[in-house]
Amino acid sequence: MEKRRFYENKLRQVALTFGFREVETPIFEDAELFILRSGPNVLKELYAFKDKGDRDIALRPEMTAPAIRMFVNNMSNDPKPIKIFYFGQCFRYERPQSGRYREFFQFGAELIGSATPETDAEVIAMAASMIKAFGLKEYRVRIGHIGVLRQRIADAGVPADRAAEVLQKLDKKLYDEARPLMEDMGVSSADIDGIFDLTETVGGPEVLSKVPGDVGDYLRKVVSFLEAMGVETPEIDLGVVRGLDYYTGMVFEAEAPALGAEKQICGGGSYTLSELFGGEKVFSTGFAVGFDRILLAAEKEGQAYEPRGIDAYVLPVSDDMRLKAAEVVAMLRHEGISSDVDIMGRKMGKALKYASAVRARFAVIVGSKEMEEGAVTLRDMSSGEQRTVPVESLPAEIKKTQ
Amino acid sequence: MEKRRFYENKLRQVALTFGFREVETPIFEDAELFILRSGPNVLKELYAFKDKGDRDIALRPEMTAPAIRMFVNNMSNDPKPIKIFYFGQCFRYERPQSGRYREFFQFGAELIGSATPETDAEVIAMAASMIKAFGLKEYRVRIGHIGVLRQRIADAGVPADRAAEVLQKLDKKLYDEARPLMEDMGVSSADIDGIFDLTETVGGPEVLSKVPGDVGDYLRKVVSFLEAMGVETPEIDLGVVRGLDYYTGMVFEAEAPALGAEKQICGGGSYTLSELFGGEKVFSTGFAVGFDRILLAAEKEGQAYEPRGIDAYVLPVSDDMRLKAAEVVAMLRHEGISSDVDIMGRKMGKALKYASAVRARFAVIVGSKEMEEGAVTLRDMSSGEQRTVPVESLPAEIKKTQ
Repeated sequence: MEKRRFYENKLRQVALTFGFREVETPIFEDAELFILRSGPNVLKELYAFKDKGDRDIALRPEMTAPAIRMFVNNMSNDPKPIKIFYFGQCFRYERPQSGRYREFFQFGAELIGSATPETDAEVIAMAASMIKAFGLKEYRVRIGHIGVLRQRIADAGVPADRAAEVLQKLDKKLYDEARPLMEDMGVSSADIDGIFDLTETVGGPEVLSKVPGDVGDYLRKVVSFLEAMGVETPEIDLGVVRGLDYYTGMVFEAEAPALGAEKQICGGGSYTLSELFGGEKVFSTGFAVGFDRILLAAEKEGQAYEPRGIDAYVLPVSDDMRLKAAEVVAMLRHEGISSDVDIMGRKMGKALKYASAVRARFAVIVGSKEMEEGAVTLRDMSSGEQRTVPVESLPAEIKKTQ
Repeated sequence: MEKRRFYENKLRQVALTFGFREVETPIFEDAELFILRSGPNVLKELYAFKDKGDRDIALRPEMTAPAIRMFVNNMSNDPKPIKIFYFGQCFRYERPQSGRYREFFQFGAELIGSATPETDAEVIAMAASMIKAFGLKEYRVRIGHIGVLRQRIADAGVPADRAAEVLQKLDKKLYDEARPLMEDMGVSSADIDGIFDLTETVGGPEVLSKVPGDVGDYLRKVVSFLEAMGVETPEIDLGVVRGLDYYTGMVFEAEAPALGAEKQICGGGSYTLSELFGGEKVFSTGFAVGFDRILLAAEKEGQAYEPRGIDAYVLPVSDDMRLKAAEVVAMLRHEGISSDVDIMGRKMGKALKYASAVRARFAVIVGSKEMEEGAVTLRDMSSGEQRTVPVESLPAEIKKTQ
């Protein structure tokens, strides 16, 4: 948990620096909300149940729908754009595997009410800063555009109500299954090849010349803003499809090769969702970070988290010094120094062993002889060095090595 | 949420300063765990359901049972004492009312594996420091001892398996109901009066002279340690009963008069619980803080939380300055300055209005003329004062007023 808080705070710091504000939504909501966003298939992996009031509720499987529901209910009149982020537990009943748990932590952000290249660049830049904040060395950000692909398959004759089927196959690069599917819909061989070709458009910004119409210009602008913000030039990949219907334009994903097959650590894009929840149609761009997975990636890259200990462990040399020891520890805590005191009546040797176990940097030994002169013995726990220090200079002595 | 995080971090800081370490437990557990701790009555207010694997699970109604379950499973061999704290959502299906929600945040701490007056004092001292950290002016800490009351009613002839019934009446000061109940059990009138008298033993440490046996001495030591640690002398109140069976000795509560009838903000005591979850019997002292309720108390006392805004809002005066503005905002963020940039192509007037709405301290106006000389216009949003500042000294200028 200590480690999780450490990284969580890094993410929070990045989000605050980008001018996003934190929100929290309930752990459970009407199950309907998640079905509206993700389709009925989501039911298979929902923790859904009836509460004592016979309401159909579900533990949240993600936080975009709750965040947008909250926007519709409580924030729709706030000045746009609205920049919010959230961090919390989500739940999916699926087979647990490496970096994939039934209860997992998700970090996400939504930039609501704006639809410009700057908007998309802002969100991608924040995602990249977060990955960097994790200390991840190897990662790739891939940017695509779902609009161009949707347009292409519509032009080729795929009926609107069957587009999702086709996109799902393309998302998973299942060309062998996508081809007969589209043939059945009467799509020509040349169009099918053209569609496959589009999803294989991958490379530097130069491949944008192959992107038809305004979308090429649009993505070029996104890339320019990213460059101005000092973000490493991302890869263009028009094969980034994302699984969900509500994306409208730019989509992006980040992956960490260290994770192997389950390598996606972050994904998002521009979308409209509020109209599904009874609000007006509002363009937004958002993304989510798989917190547990990115943590795992950092670990696999060999990053070690060094657990923090406490600053000082106070131990009385005899029972008549116990009240004095309590005074000393209270004084240290008052100065903001994390400290602990022997409460089990242990003898010196055992107490020092415990101080090591809780990773105390110093032991403060309270003895009657030193105390007569208003002093204690300060022991450096790593070197074993000891010296007598007046009680009033104890906080300064401990702080100067922090 | 911003406000909640602000206060949550204050509590976390106190806990870390006291040498406690943070843990987190799952949002749901086997329903059995909570019944083991709280008795079958808890089912009435549990969010309990079956998962897809037909397991009986429940959203956690409290975090002591999960924390001790975690101790038994994962930490039982760690050096004692073990000092842990946690902060998270809990769930109870009960009538929502002021400061009492179906989903609520609970902060708690457990000091596991020690049973000395110092242990109890350490925990009470931390609770008091937390209440202070909230800035609460009016509060009372009352300390009792469940052991002395249990002993007294056993001596008076209340059978062990009916003690809970009697204690529940005493907890609620329902003397009219407690008397016939005990009479039915054959308790003498004199003993009943003696028991009532004991629960009415309230006052400063001097009332401890009325407390029989070792318990008086024990509580006197607790009070001495609290005084040594600079904690205001608490009230002794042997009428503090606490609702649960597993408390063994010292029990305490804190209340905020500002809250009226629902005034309890914190409660705890020493207990054994691990043996119910398959572990060895281990003495512990713990407490929980009603986070939402203490927040409400601080509000009722007139404490206002001032929402934080951002440090700087960057706005380009014309479209050809947009990439420059992106550079400037990225530079500020790199320096840890929370900042935002116009992404909607707004004209100056509207952009400044938005900057006010998001409580920006400064507007950074990026114009082509100033930019030629590597400078921008820095506008103090509260005074309206504007001056030209070289880009490289912008971070220092903004930071010096933080």
